[in-house]
Formats: sequence, structure tokens, C-alpha cells
Amino acid sequence: MRHDHLLSAKQLSRGDIETVLDRAAALADDLGAVAGAHVDRLLGLCFFEPSTRTKMSFDAAMKRLGGDTIDMGGIDSSSVTKGESLADTVRVIEGYADALVLRHPSEGSAQLASEFVDVPVINAGDGAGQHPTQTLLDLYTIRENAGFEDLSVGMMGDLKYGRTVHSLAHALTNFDVSQHFISPESLQLPRSVRYDLHGTGAQIREHTDVEEVVEALDVLYVTRIQRERFPDENEYRKVAGEYRIDAELLERAGDDLTVMHPLPRVDEIAPDVDETDHATYFQQAHNGVPVRMALLDLML
Amino acid sequence: MRHDHLLSAKQLSRGDIETVLDRAAALADDLGAVAGAHVDRLLGLCFFEPSTRTKMSFDAAMKRLGGDTIDMGGIDSSSVTKGESLADTVRVIEGYADALVLRHPSEGSAQLASEFVDVPVINAGDGAGQHPTQTLLDLYTIRENAGFEDLSVGMMGDLKYGRTVHSLAHALTNFDVSQHFISPESLQLPRSVRYDLHGTGAQIREHTDVEEVVEALDVLYVTRIQRERFPDENEYRKVAGEYRIDAELLERAGDDLTVMHPLPRVDEIAPDVDETDHATYFQQAHNGVPVRMALLDLML
Amino acid sequence: MRHDHLLSAKQLSRGDIETVLDRAAALADDLGAVAGAHVDRLLGLCFFEPSTRTKMSFDAAMKRLGGDTIDMGGIDSSSVTKGESLADTVRVIEGYADALVLRHPSEGSAQLASEFVDVPVINAGDGAGQHPTQTLLDLYTIRENAGFEDLSVGMMGDLKYGRTVHSLAHALTNFDVSQHFISPESLQLPRSVRYDLHGTGAQIREHTDVEEVVEALDVLYVTRIQRERFPDENEYRKVAGEYRIDAELLERAGDDLTVMHPLPRVDEIAPDVDETDHATYFQQAHNGVPVRMALLDLML
Repeated sequence: MRHDHLLSAKQLSRGDIETVLDRAAALADDLGAVAGAHVDRLLGLCFFEPSTRTKMSFDAAMKRLGGDTIDMGGIDSSSVTKGESLADTVRVIEGYADALVLRHPSEGSAQLASEFVDVPVINAGDGAGQHPTQTLLDLYTIRENAGFEDLSVGMMGDLKYGRTVHSLAHALTNFDVSQHFISPESLQLPRSVRYDLHGTGAQIREHTDVEEVVEALDVLYVTRIQRERFPDENEYRKVAGEYRIDAELLERAGDDLTVMHPLPRVDEIAPDVDETDHATYFQQAHNGVPVRMALLDLML
Repeated sequence: MRHDHLLSAKQLSRGDIETVLDRAAALADDLGAVAGAHVDRLLGLCFFEPSTRTKMSFDAAMKRLGGDTIDMGGIDSSSVTKGESLADTVRVIEGYADALVLRHPSEGSAQLASEFVDVPVINAGDGAGQHPTQTLLDLYTIRENAGFEDLSVGMMGDLKYGRTVHSLAHALTNFDVSQHFISPESLQLPRSVRYDLHGTGAQIREHTDVEEVVEALDVLYVTRIQRERFPDENEYRKVAGEYRIDAELLERAGDDLTVMHPLPRVDEIAPDVDETDHATYFQQAHNGVPVRMALLDLML
Repeated sequence: MRHDHLLSAKQLSRGDIETVLDRAAALADDLGAVAGAHVDRLLGLCFFEPSTRTKMSFDAAMKRLGGDTIDMGGIDSSSVTKGESLADTVRVIEGYADALVLRHPSEGSAQLASEFVDVPVINAGDGAGQHPTQTLLDLYTIRENAGFEDLSVGMMGDLKYGRTVHSLAHALTNFDVSQHFISPESLQLPRSVRYDLHGTGAQIREHTDVEEVVEALDVLYVTRIQRERFPDENEYRKVAGEYRIDAELLERAGDDLTVMHPLPRVDEIAPDVDETDHATYFQQAHNGVPVRMALLDLML
């Protein structure tokens, strides 16, 4: 993989993805393979909005590589409150660190930052934009659990606003995957994403009822439906109730169904699913460490 | 010591306590003894409420062992604000770290967390519940300064709500200690704690006046009386004034009296005590490092 | 350099300054020179107010030296909110770390802290007081870009409240420098600073118009004029507009003019200056790392 920055999952070819996933698998097997490889390297953590999971797993990944991190701190403890531009902030921090991880509420901010600095920038989520390392760990989890051959993936919940789903759906077009999108009508895939997928020749189907399709799936990727999306509380409750997975529903699924979720979950996966062999969402979160290690190892 | 988790001081036998204290003493003597012993190990700091002292000393302890830490950040920067359960949060973080330190406002939360994860959980304070590493550093400080033979320990201040005192009192029943409890009537030991202590055969006495007992003590453990406990400001002032230590009062004490305090203090120990040989509270805080090093070294 | 603490730029002799700057230059050239020199040393970061730049560069400096840091966290997450005194806080933290970096809103707090602890205290800014490591990195940047021989330095903007300027102006009296102070009348150097400079025999001149002096300068040090200083918004806008640097203005300057700024900037340097060879403010910020490494290396 030869990229100066990782800004979008779309910039990754199938070859790039396989390089990262192979490296992650090797690291997950044998952490000793990289012991000391990145001693004396510093990763700058620039989180302009909160993110427990992404931040901690980048932190862990860099430290498990033998390197260290420096943290910008919360936005209230930063120069941002004094009116500094993002361009200035990253141009300062590039002098302190060997690479930057950027999380920012505004779409396009990672691209902008990358135009001002010479060190690698990794996009850790920019608003409604991209979150490519989430896509990579999702792909890694799918490959480890279900493989990419003759694969059937369902994505369920809020498909309208969920950038995780858009990004993953696009990345899956690199592989032999039939994709099923399961959502209420009001939260279907945006037209632009649907066109984008069709343009790649992807096989996609849309559903409103998970029960009609669950049996055929190898992977079910569940996302949270946010209360804020609904003007009416009753409407929200009705929809949330229909797009909720529990152990009973999963009895209709194949034994090998892999259930994923980008977390945090609230109610959309019942706790009784945790006890089943389907539950893969915690392992999925844990996969953030080897995948981010692989990426840092390749980019630094 | 063979425990998967450290949830409560009550789970520690006299043998466990001595193992930790002996190891801490060895580490305090010679930090080199563990140099590099825990390189590549990560400790997850999960503080759901603020705690300068406990957090910094765990951080220092892990780093002095050659390992590193990853920090969940404040609760406002965590998935908690998105409605994630404690069980989910710790199940994610266990994938990033080799052990977890948990501080949480709710009693029983460390126990709960331990039921969901496979890595060791160390309780760093759960509300009105337990704070076992505080108890261990208190015991270490007592042993280093006064020994455990034929010992007389006084605990003063808020004995009703102070979990530090309840925990230490219980732990001291493992040794040959007579315990004196000094407080206003409204802040006496809760009945449950008194019964608990009597049940172990401990020698305990209760007092309302520190002057009547200070001469007989080897250790005086002072705690803060919180304004919020009193409906009436005048009542608070009167009580706080009576349960305040200063250099003049300590002239009645034996030369070897060790004065301790879990800190932070506000007014309950006058600054003129800092200059006396009795003052042991800063050393006590510092002892958090070797004691937590010993514990981590034994558990990791 | 032999100082127990670094509290003020005023305590540094010309020899001290040159020792730090020489060491910084050597480190900037070859980081390997100190690899592993400070393994197992911990620096305590005690920031009682936010500071992205200073905190991150101390953090990076200590880690690049092979050591590590422990962070007190924000003041809301500290014992400070429970009413603990600064003296108590630093006496606790000195038991966890090998040196302390202190940032505090109150002038004199670094001096106060240093009186209570045995480990080195480095003042990282105490209100209207001192910020000596900023002065050292400013001096380093000047020396690297313009040298100290026959030097003409202009300082522009808010010269009344800008502690950075006061401190740098004082430090420059150690060298053969003519100093020009460019500001609106309402934000001129305080009388006390002017007297102080005159007392050292420094050559100083004051101006209200940057255009009349820019041609003669080797270094132009720009500072931010804060809106809060002006009761009237119109008055502020007028002044801010006059004390703003852009590429057009710099066409009058010598080719070698070095433009500096302590950052964050808001409007006082136009973005078109960033593209010119004059722009040295990002490099100046980056110089915080080798300068703080040098200082820590000398003090630890």
C-alpha cells in the first residue's frame, strides 16, 4: 500500500485492502513480529469530538507497536476555543508527531488537513464523511468470520445517515458479495449511495422486513436508529421495535450467521444475542487494534 | 496472591495483604527489580468519575513497571453519553488492554464489570462501595511507620459515610490492632460496620473527643467532614472545628504518632502539622505508587 | 546550567541560555544522541488551564527523550474542585513524577509550588507572570534564523498585556539587539517593563506604525490584539486592521525578515504570508520540542 494519507475508504483498491487485512492477521497472530519496530515514533491524536472506541484503539495500536501517542485533549482544552483554524492547528501538531489521526465533526476536514501538512493524516471520522479505519476493521471481521467468497451481507437500521454502512457497502463492491439493505422506508439508502453502488455493478437488494431475508445471510450488520431522526416519538418506537434483533429472531438464521454492530448499541441488539455464537460485535471492536496496528505499520 | 480481580478489600486474606505489602516494600527499595518486566502490557484506565490521585498513581505505577496505559477519557468524551451500558463499555475495552482499572459512582459496578470480562479488573472506587487499593496503601503506610504489633489506631471525622475508614477498619482486623473511632454522634460508624467489626472479634472503642484518646494512639487517621452532611451551616462549623487537628493538639500525642489522611484535605489538618514529624499524609499518597506497582506486578 | 527549578526567564544568564540553545540545536540535529537517556523518568503535567501547544510539546519532548508523562487532567477532573490547595496538589504529585511542569492562571504560582516540592518545577505559564520555555524557544528560533549579531527585532501588537513579549524583550538584553516596539498607544509597553529594559542598557524604540520600521528589521514578532481589551468594537476593528501583516506589506521588508508569532493567530497575520519565506511561526512552534527536550535533559 502506498498512500501518503488515508482519507477515505474509496481510495483503497482491493489490493490495498488485502495488504492491510493480511498484515493485521499476521499481527493478531504474533504481536512480537513488530516489537520495537516503531519505538521513538509519536502519533498525534487530534480528536475534535469525543470517540472512546476509535481513540482508545488507535492509542492501544500505537503503543502495541512500541511507539507512543500525544493527545491534543478535548476541544475545550485546545487553541480551537481561541479561534485557531484547523489548518493552523494541524500545521503546529505536525511538528510534534510523526503522523496525525484526525476526528472532526465537519465533512472534508481530513482532506483539508492533509493539504497543509507533510506527515501522514489518517481520517478517524469526519462528520457525515468518511471513517475508513472503521471500514477496514469491518472488512477484517467479515473476512475472518465469513470469508469473501460467495458472500451475502445484510445491513440493517439507519441506512440513510449511517456513514459506516455507506463506506462498508462501497468497499464490499471490491469482492464477490451480494448486499441486502434492510430499513424502514424513511431511512433507506440515499439515492446517491444507491447510484454509486449500481455504478460498480454491485448486486444489491432492498428490504423492509429483516425476517424475510435473515435466513439467506452470512453477515448481518446492525446499526442504531437514532431517536432524533423521528419527529414523532411513537413513530420512532414502532420503527425501533421492528429493526431490533434478538435470539428468537436469530433462530431463523443459519448457524454461521455473523452479527456485527459498530457500537455503541442501545436497544437494537437484545442482550440475549450476546450469549449466542452469532454475536461478533465485541470481537469486531477488538479487531480495531490489529487493523490499526497494520495500518500504522504500513504508513509510518 | 491468586485473584482474578481485585474488587474489595474484604477478599484479601492476611497472607494476600502481606504479599502485596512485601512486594511493594521491595519495589520501593529497588525499582530496577521490575525494569522491563511489563513492557508491552497495557492498563486500561476507566474512570467514570474524576480522581486525580488514584488515576495518576495507577498511571505512574504502570509506567514505572515499563508498561503503558490507555485512558478512556472523561465520561463526557465516552460512549456512555450515547447510552452504552457499563457491561458493553468494559467488554469493548478489554480488547484493548491487559487489565482494567475501574472507578465508577455506583456501588457494585466493579463486581458487575468483572462478570463480563476476562482480563483482571481492579476496583479503584465504586461509589459508597469499596476502594481496595486505597486500603492497601493505608496498610502499607501504617506498617512502614508503626508496624502491626500491639498497635493502636484512631480514625477520626466522618465515620458514617467514609468508605475509606470502613474498609481500613475491616482490613485491620487481620492484625493485632485496637481501633478507636472518634466522631460526632451524627457521623458515627454505621451499625452494619460496627457489627461487622465485632463479628471478627476486633477490639473497638468509640469516642467523641479526640483529646481524650490521642495520647494512646500510634496512628491517627483523619478524614474530611463534608459540609453537605449538615443541614445547618452553624452545626457544620461547630463540628468541623472540633474534629480538626493542629500542632498544638499534637503536643499531647506520643512522639511517634503517625498522622494520616486520604487527601484531599481542606481544613481538618492545619498547615502547621505539615512541619511536624507526625505528618505522614503526603508520604501516604506517594505510597500509592509502589503499592499499585506491586499489585499490578502480581496480577498481570 | 544549574538551576533546581525554571520559574522565570529572568533567572537565566546569557550562559544558561546558550547552554540550552546549543543542546537544543544538537538534539534537533541528532535525536539519537539522547535515545534511552531518560527511560524510566516520568514528567508530571500539571495544567490548571488549557494549553494545547505547550502541553503537547512538553509531552512530545519527554517521550522523544525516551521517558514518559503522567497528566493531572483538566481542573474539573482534579482534587482542585474539592478545595485542595495548590501546595497540597503539587506535594502529592511530586511523589509520582521526577519533575513537574506547571501551568496555572495565577501569577506567582510556579514560585509557590517550587517552595513546597523537592523535584524540579518548570513554569509553563503562570497568568500574567512568566512563561520561560516560550522565551527559550523564541530565542532559539531567532538564533537559528537571524543570529544574535547586530540584530534588529520588532515586536508588534498587544505590548501591554503580552507576557511573551515582556519576557522575550528582557531576555534579548543579554545580546547585541536593538528592539523596536510597535503598537497602538493604548497597548504600549507598561512603564515597568520599559524601565526594566532601560535599566539593562537596552536600545529600545517605540513606534505606532509598522510601515515606518519594517524595512530595518531582521525579525518581526507579531502578537494577537484581543478584542476584550477594547470597550468599543469599532475601536478594536480599527486597531486590529492597522496591526495586521500581509504579503503586500512584507514586500517593503528585507528578504531575510523572519516573521514570528507565539500562536494561535486569528487575523493578525494574513494567510498569504504563510506562503512566503518570511513565515517562521510554525517552525517556531515546532522548535518547542528540541528546546524543551534540551531543558528536560539538562534538568532531570
